[in-house]
Amino acid sequence: MAVGLTGLPELYPVAGISLGTAAAGIRYRGRDDLVLMEMAPGGTAAAVFTRNAFCAAPVSVAREHLELFSPRFLLINAGNANAGTGKQGLADARQSCKSLAEAGGCRPAEVLPFSTGVIGEPLPLARLQAGIPAVLADRAGDAAAWERAARAIMTTDTVPKGASRRFEQAGRTVTVTGIAKGSGMIHPDMATMLAYVATDAAVERDLLADCLKRAVERSFNRISVDGDTSTNDACVLLASGAAGLPAIDNEGDPALALFQEALDGVCLELAQAIIRDGEGATKFITVRVEDGATPEECAAVAFTIAHSPLVKTACFASDPNWGRILAAVGRAGLEALDIARVTIHLDDVSIVMNGGRHPDYREEMGAAVMKLPEFTIRVNLGRGNHTTEVWTTDLSYDYVKINAEYRS
Amino acid sequence: MAVGLTGLPELYPVAGISLGTAAAGIRYRGRDDLVLMEMAPGGTAAAVFTRNAFCAAPVSVAREHLELFSPRFLLINAGNANAGTGKQGLADARQSCKSLAEAGGCRPAEVLPFSTGVIGEPLPLARLQAGIPAVLADRAGDAAAWERAARAIMTTDTVPKGASRRFEQAGRTVTVTGIAKGSGMIHPDMATMLAYVATDAAVERDLLADCLKRAVERSFNRISVDGDTSTNDACVLLASGAAGLPAIDNEGDPALALFQEALDGVCLELAQAIIRDGEGATKFITVRVEDGATPEECAAVAFTIAHSPLVKTACFASDPNWGRILAAVGRAGLEALDIARVTIHLDDVSIVMNGGRHPDYREEMGAAVMKLPEFTIRVNLGRGNHTTEVWTTDLSYDYVKINAEYRS
Repeated sequence: MAVGLTGLPELYPVAGISLGTAAAGIRYRGRDDLVLMEMAPGGTAAAVFTRNAFCAAPVSVAREHLELFSPRFLLINAGNANAGTGKQGLADARQSCKSLAEAGGCRPAEVLPFSTGVIGEPLPLARLQAGIPAVLADRAGDAAAWERAARAIMTTDTVPKGASRRFEQAGRTVTVTGIAKGSGMIHPDMATMLAYVATDAAVERDLLADCLKRAVERSFNRISVDGDTSTNDACVLLASGAAGLPAIDNEGDPALALFQEALDGVCLELAQAIIRDGEGATKFITVRVEDGATPEECAAVAFTIAHSPLVKTACFASDPNWGRILAAVGRAGLEALDIARVTIHLDDVSIVMNGGRHPDYREEMGAAVMKLPEFTIRVNLGRGNHTTEVWTTDLSYDYVKINAEYRS
Repeated sequence: MAVGLTGLPELYPVAGISLGTAAAGIRYRGRDDLVLMEMAPGGTAAAVFTRNAFCAAPVSVAREHLELFSPRFLLINAGNANAGTGKQGLADARQSCKSLAEAGGCRPAEVLPFSTGVIGEPLPLARLQAGIPAVLADRAGDAAAWERAARAIMTTDTVPKGASRRFEQAGRTVTVTGIAKGSGMIHPDMATMLAYVATDAAVERDLLADCLKRAVERSFNRISVDGDTSTNDACVLLASGAAGLPAIDNEGDPALALFQEALDGVCLELAQAIIRDGEGATKFITVRVEDGATPEECAAVAFTIAHSPLVKTACFASDPNWGRILAAVGRAGLEALDIARVTIHLDDVSIVMNGGRHPDYREEMGAAVMKLPEFTIRVNLGRGNHTTEVWTTDLSYDYVKINAEYRS
């Protein structure tokens, strides 16, 4: 029941990147659940990881390995998070890297491990190891390999998620393609979000990290609370350089803006896809906060609205109970907010002005907007020139059902 | 379906306080929805109000009036919040005070108005005014009057809420009795919480305000996020002095501790009753965070757990998905948290130690605790000597149902 999301868009292959999948039986039966992503030697990489103090074992190991080398392989399993697993979990994550390194011909620290699924269960390492020959043998660089990988990393997702962009640099085509998983969200910070983006551009390592940070700030962090994340969240960006172009290595490089735009586009589409596939979601809601004094206060108001269970249930019911939106604005903690200047719109329907209901507003106007599968809650704070958008879903019976029954 | 709450406990009358109720037809039919609370002249009062920037009109007026005089009357209506109603709402709140003052023989500023119910609808002032003679005529000081008032202030509450304590001061009995309403909560800050507590002790005004602040901090603010509140929240404490005892007028007065203890008891029982009657609640959950470095970090961890929809749905399903608790601890924002020192218990069942599952823990042990209607999630941070408890509910289908359908 993903909102406005029927399946994968066309995914353009990325030179220098190949992917393999296999059914390792980590948890699921009859589907692929192990993914290998390989980058040809000479590329660079960047990643953003969860800030959760209880980060999963593979996150600790991936963070450590990424400091040492550009990765040769990413190894991703679905069905088990290897989180809350203590020392054994760390040992298992390291061993999985070692096993792949032996079979794949690289150093263990050139492997980044990732896991998603149930927390607190021991990783079935033997099964994972047994799947390694199969994912190596399955490696391919075509669109179909990307699509299989997008499916194999799913847990509670109902649809696979991917996005692609292309741009021209010095007469050649450069590609940015990504896949992601994640749907466990009222708050995205409470379910694992994994995203893997690759490009055949050549980008200097530190610059690549800056690009990823910017893209994440505008996408995955706009569907999150305070940048908080689950125990396993990770977003990885690989730049193979295989398009054969000179490396982008300074902020003044004109190719940088094109790359950033493509990367932003991919990350935003993936982030929104995660929301569209939000657990139990029946609506895709944009919360736009305009004319704030700072970007931070816009985000504070937007997230207060986006995370209000009362606003979310009203959205589910298509009930324009705008008092709940107004109450959320009021408790977002803004200093000296002049409520007389605040306006609230549902799409283009003006609901609140001068601290109360707009004189022309009638209930059916708001209800008509909220019956749409996609709409915008627009708040104007009237005290600055900053604007922030965040994306969220409604809160439905199915959210409760999915989260009460997951794992059982 | 309030958890462990079958009805009102015995409510002891308070000398100097009388109450009247009437069916004014504000919104509901066939039930009382207007309440008058009268304090005999000579008493003192204190109140804590919502910090929401969009505070309701009656809150603005009550705050203003309380600065001027000790109140003679509180006038409370259920069914309409008179919030988000702009200038007209303010005029209506003022007019309601004026009308009662004329009929009751006092100054308008000796009346404090309170409203709870739907936001954004104009207050049906004429109906409220028409009910004033009836609430005046109905005034009585007995337990039955308290009980009627407890019922008349209900909105989505399924049971009336009240609490009473007595203590001895200089050989006389002093009483503290309170009533409250509120149940709209995953987060209590999103639904109106109203509490009215009265005592026949004589307490100097500033000291009374301090007592109330302390009591609220230990009760209503322990079921809330960051002390945030809805547009209408209020907790009022009246001290009639009618027990005929000398006024408690300094922090060193031995009677003060007795009074504070009784007040704390009443407020805690009312606050917990609100949680027990949480919308759709099937469980009453205590979240206890021990051995933190500061009370603030204990509260941060406790509220992160208490507000996690994933923890709440797991509680609803009696599924000891402790990874969700651990993830909540990890993202509460504590600096330099050593996860190896954190332990988690469900009642007395040890679940997490050394960053992972306790070796003796088995799933059925956790499930047995979570099937109980009341249990404690206990987290020990192992880095200090502060402890905080907060109280919360699970997240059930009925929560969604109630909030999707309220107002429709």
